[in-house]
Amino acid sequence: MSDHERITVVLVAARNPLNIGAAARAMANFGFSDLRIANAYTESFRKARSAVGAEDILATAHEYATLSEAITDCTLVLGAAMPDRRQPAHPALSPAQSLPLILDHLAAAPEHRVALLFGSEKTGLTNDHLSRCHALLSIPTWPAQPSMNLGQAVAVCLYALALPADTTTTPQESVPCATDAELDRLTRVLLDLLHTAGYLRDDGVKNEAAARLVRRLQLSSADSSLLLGMLRKVLAAWNSRA
Amino acid sequence: MSDHERITVVLVAARNPLNIGAAARAMANFGFSDLRIANAYTESFRKARSAVGAEDILATAHEYATLSEAITDCTLVLGAAMPDRRQPAHPALSPAQSLPLILDHLAAAPEHRVALLFGSEKTGLTNDHLSRCHALLSIPTWPAQPSMNLGQAVAVCLYALALPADTTTTPQESVPCATDAELDRLTRVLLDLLHTAGYLRDDGVKNEAAARLVRRLQLSSADSSLLLGMLRKVLAAWNSRA
Repeated sequence: MSDHERITVVLVAARNPLNIGAAARAMANFGFSDLRIANAYTESFRKARSAVGAEDILATAHEYATLSEAITDCTLVLGAAMPDRRQPAHPALSPAQSLPLILDHLAAAPEHRVALLFGSEKTGLTNDHLSRCHALLSIPTWPAQPSMNLGQAVAVCLYALALPADTTTTPQESVPCATDAELDRLTRVLLDLLHTAGYLRDDGVKNEAAARLVRRLQLSSADSSLLLGMLRKVLAAWNSRA
Repeated sequence: MSDHERITVVLVAARNPLNIGAAARAMANFGFSDLRIANAYTESFRKARSAVGAEDILATAHEYATLSEAITDCTLVLGAAMPDRRQPAHPALSPAQSLPLILDHLAAAPEHRVALLFGSEKTGLTNDHLSRCHALLSIPTWPAQPSMNLGQAVAVCLYALALPADTTTTPQESVPCATDAELDRLTRVLLDLLHTAGYLRDDGVKNEAAARLVRRLQLSSADSSLLLGMLRKVLAAWNSRA
């Protein structure tokens, strides 16, 4: 499988069929093919299917009820968003800076798959979506008008990430990273434990901090399982004591 | 005047108000402000004026009846188009390759102004438009779907050409290049002369070759005047002899 085929574009809650069509067309322009639509407005997606120049991609695109289902097999998740001063812990990379990161990640194990998330036209990616990301993908724009049109943002990112047509990295060592599904399980057990321990507050701020921490750890699949086992053991012990 | 202010985006015969609005928004995103609409469909332009996030640019954009009028003060004209095998003489540059060319050109004289031409949604730039260009600006796309949406092509080019916000090159020597208007005058006199001499054919192929030659010469304003004077003299002599 070529590197292009291992990079997935995920549109989250996109509303405008023209933008969905434009995103698919940009994918065709730069040699990408795996499009997934999360939190889809089915009507918008249906209308987008007729977009000129992107029929094949739209015909094979899949709809998912949640972001979680859309990225379950992805091992590196980058979310298109402005750098957030409230969340400085989340690294923000320009498209040019993210290219070597993505290539290294694809080279590290054949199971690896990269997801690029783009949020809805109105709100962008929410904090909840960003808590599933390993890093932000931030296009450098001018302060007076930083907000880009969805279809144009997808085109600029894919242009910057476009690889020579025949790029297929050869995995050297094979230590696959945890998938989004594995990290999600781990996060939920950690939150359970923190809740049980009275660490979490009602406003959700600490939940999110914990979720982001799990993404930042860059766990391998094996280490994610190991840590999950540990946390489950602690939680079970706590519950049996109560 | 900053370098950003000396780069003009020209949309030629754009039909879709959404694309005009999208082009203006991309300009705002990357710090450009001079938008010109040539061969405008006035109705399309009027509808585009409400585009979100680009109101200022659209309010100051100008309409021109012809491309010639739109680029009269421009000294370097790049046309967004696929490389054309039929016209190998026209150099084709990727956006990344064109950046140093543009910066050098802006640095060479304070009078210099760069125009980036984008053609209509259906036909792109015609041969006639391309004959006004010094080089092609070609976004590297995949062979299966090389044709980009207009708004996305503008966004990708401006992203690739975006300069740090405070870039203002300091002209070192001042040998201004010929403006489009000067080159156009020169071209017309050359064509007159070639017509008089029976060099031109009815199919226009040689006209275009001659027009492109004039652009490739990279004439200074002074040399353009000099050459124009020479050709006029020859033409006058010929006519008085006839």
